[in-house]
Amino acid sequence: MKAFVPSHITGFFAAHRKSDPLESGSVGCGLNLCLGATTTVERSEETVILLNGLPNQAPVSRMVVESLAPCPVVVDTRLPMPEGAGFGASGAGALGCAYALNACFDLGLTCNQAAAVAHRAEVTCRTGLGDVIAQNTGGLVIRLQPGAPGRGVVDRIPTPPLPVHYVVRGPISTSEVLSDEALMRSVNRLGERCLKALLKRPTLPEFMRLSRLFATETGLARPWAVEAMEAVEAGGGQASMIMLGDAIFSFGAKEALQEFGEVKTTMVSERGASLD
Amino acid sequence: MKAFVPSHITGFFAAHRKSDPLESGSVGCGLNLCLGATTTVERSEETVILLNGLPNQAPVSRMVVESLAPCPVVVDTRLPMPEGAGFGASGAGALGCAYALNACFDLGLTCNQAAAVAHRAEVTCRTGLGDVIAQNTGGLVIRLQPGAPGRGVVDRIPTPPLPVHYVVRGPISTSEVLSDEALMRSVNRLGERCLKALLKRPTLPEFMRLSRLFATETGLARPWAVEAMEAVEAGGGQASMIMLGDAIFSFGAKEALQEFGEVKTTMVSERGASLD
Repeated sequence: MKAFVPSHITGFFAAHRKSDPLESGSVGCGLNLCLGATTTVERSEETVILLNGLPNQAPVSRMVVESLAPCPVVVDTRLPMPEGAGFGASGAGALGCAYALNACFDLGLTCNQAAAVAHRAEVTCRTGLGDVIAQNTGGLVIRLQPGAPGRGVVDRIPTPPLPVHYVVRGPISTSEVLSDEALMRSVNRLGERCLKALLKRPTLPEFMRLSRLFATETGLARPWAVEAMEAVEAGGGQASMIMLGDAIFSFGAKEALQEFGEVKTTMVSERGASLD
Repeated sequence: MKAFVPSHITGFFAAHRKSDPLESGSVGCGLNLCLGATTTVERSEETVILLNGLPNQAPVSRMVVESLAPCPVVVDTRLPMPEGAGFGASGAGALGCAYALNACFDLGLTCNQAAAVAHRAEVTCRTGLGDVIAQNTGGLVIRLQPGAPGRGVVDRIPTPPLPVHYVVRGPISTSEVLSDEALMRSVNRLGERCLKALLKRPTLPEFMRLSRLFATETGLARPWAVEAMEAVEAGGGQASMIMLGDAIFSFGAKEALQEFGEVKTTMVSERGASLD
């Protein structure tokens, strides 16, 4: 039994950190991508977590294994997305791990229950706050109320399976940004404002417009990224920054992105976490 | 822009009817199937609703058009599923209509907001109570709290895309069953009991076992359907009745079904209502 989890890129967010990881989370809006992780699980003599074929500490997935596995296991996760660049790779690994363990050992968890274990691990390791609940849903997800899957509240913006282009220059440390209190105050203020604005007109173009505003006004977007967004806009598309990575994504105007790095293309994934 | 909506077959349910259609709904559990409706919408001189190419009163879809369309439209819905046999055809038509109108006229509704319009129409026309929220989700859906999408609460049971076999003998009138007070008292009592039992062990086999119990103990299953369930079980599969149709569905043991009618096969659909 194989578990699939899409990449998830956040456009804007506001963090809500509480003492209980299941109450912690973020509000905001982000997009699930077909570029997804797959995870299989097998009983074993000792626990080993393989990321793209190589043994890895993988602390988030490991915490899920420690919570759910009744015996040692080999977890084999394929992550085709860039790591540390805002694609929700750690959430995808942890969520796939929870689904695969649930199926392998017939644990009898619902989707939200399995996903809540992955959310708790992600929040505890400070690798993310909102990816897991969005990846558990699929599509273009609005996170209305923070919290683990089953506690947080989400809705979706209907979006056809359009191509999404992206350029990645490198990682940004999520835990560093989340720990910078002055930055986070401005992020949270702007994130809440963008969410309020999106709810007045929840459409894909409005999501892109607000994400771009958030990326520039928080100062998170580096100069090349701002230039790239402007180039895409001049080419008739819409682009914004991937939160949190030194990376941008766009709808349309692929050619305008080419001078900024290697352009890759995937699709919007309506499919959320699920078994293959 | 084309909208896709899966078929939805309920295994067991308890009705919750309130004066507000958005507060009305049902709890229970059901399965989304790949056998899905597709709907397109176009501006027109006068409003016409086509079901499988033929003009139809289609009261549920019509109510959605009256709620959402800013001008006359032609709605073209293809329904490959049997009608009136518990596949949620009216919900699929109405929900597809809401998604397609939202896309065609750029209405700026979220998935839950569009689906709530379809839910209200379905409840008002007394054609169903829980299909729309389940079809809006995809997969094997537990309806935990009744209500329209965005108000009702759902979770899912992780299920791989397995083949589902079904035999349909004919329709059962949903509105007749919902109007029979004595029957509904027993349906509701049993439906709540099955939900409680499912939540102790939310797995696909347990869903099938409880659905079968519900079908026989409510007396809704006709003698041929009970025989067919027993035959599937003897063949190593699991079967139950489709609520509400004179029809059964099974996982496994396809050959055991053949003496009861034409056996068709589709797949579990993790994909819920979405744009193509």
